[in-house]
Amino acid sequence: MNPIGPVNALYPMPTTLVGATVNGKPNFLAVAHVGILNHGTPQYLSIGLGKVHYSNAGIQENRTFSICMPSEDLMVETDYCGIMTGKKTDKAALFDIFYGELDTAPMIRQCKINMELRLHDVLDFSTHDIFIGELVQTYADDSVMTDNTIDVSKLRPLLFDMASKKYWSLGPSIGNCWNAGKSLKGK
Amino acid sequence: MNPIGPVNALYPMPTTLVGATVNGKPNFLAVAHVGILNHGTPQYLSIGLGKVHYSNAGIQENRTFSICMPSEDLMVETDYCGIMTGKKTDKAALFDIFYGELDTAPMIRQCKINMELRLHDVLDFSTHDIFIGELVQTYADDSVMTDNTIDVSKLRPLLFDMASKKYWSLGPSIGNCWNAGKSLKGK
Repeated sequence: MNPIGPVNALYPMPTTLVGATVNGKPNFLAVAHVGILNHGTPQYLSIGLGKVHYSNAGIQENRTFSICMPSEDLMVETDYCGIMTGKKTDKAALFDIFYGELDTAPMIRQCKINMELRLHDVLDFSTHDIFIGELVQTYADDSVMTDNTIDVSKLRPLLFDMASKKYWSLGPSIGNCWNAGKSLKGK
Repeated sequence: MNPIGPVNALYPMPTTLVGATVNGKPNFLAVAHVGILNHGTPQYLSIGLGKVHYSNAGIQENRTFSICMPSEDLMVETDYCGIMTGKKTDKAALFDIFYGELDTAPMIRQCKINMELRLHDVLDFSTHDIFIGELVQTYADDSVMTDNTIDVSKLRPLLFDMASKKYWSLGPSIGNCWNAGKSLKGK
């Protein structure tokens, strides 16, 4: 076991498209530096955006944003949203946009799962704004549901790994949580 | 696209074993509600722990914790660490423990990647403590490295999805980040 420096190895993470209204128009950027803060209601999620990004001011202004979950078949569009800046490019033109309960959290019909969030807090790190959102509503396409539950094997999320700079697919399920470990009880 | 209530769909997430010193002894719990806050140095990561957990007081007291990355072959042990509480069970006895630069962030030799963190801040949510750590050092086993970089295909991380309550494996890589989207440029 060798020290390799403070290398962030908390991967893979789900790649998302974060939607915001910026200067009155919808914009999307690719974000995999996300977080789940708690489990419950209200549900809080975080996104970490470098301060150079175009969307930060819009999220601050409107206090809303969306987290849209692209499937594997949107890899090219998702990557494009990570390469281009909304300062110069109308990235929303790639997608069919819709809105839910909030007026300023654009979401994407081509993404089979979309979440709209109200801004709860902002953590001001030196180079990044960490936007903490309270989940308001989740929208799901029937094609990724099984028994009224989101089916991750149908969603085919796009996973991101920084070390390889690659997108990865989801493999098969391999065991049941809060169950697989029972065999060690009493040993 | 149908509203399904505020269902957290930000999955799968990497399943980790978080190590802490509690009442003078090493303890580990399974945590997949994690986050990447920024990208840079210092690197900040978050873990969200329900306040009922045994480890919270130890992280507050010692201001250190570890994030250990179990591979698929540690699914049973990892799940056990999510089922049992350190109040009653010596979960550290499952593993060969080691320490790095910090004296109170126990790590696991059976995990091929381990990170030790210094506590940077705590966000006090009603039912959860969100521990934000500054990454101090990362330890890697040679068996998961390729060309001096962590190779996620060798690590075989254990992915967690709440909807299915299952662990999932990583599938094949499917494209290059900051590259796949170039084909849309100028269209």
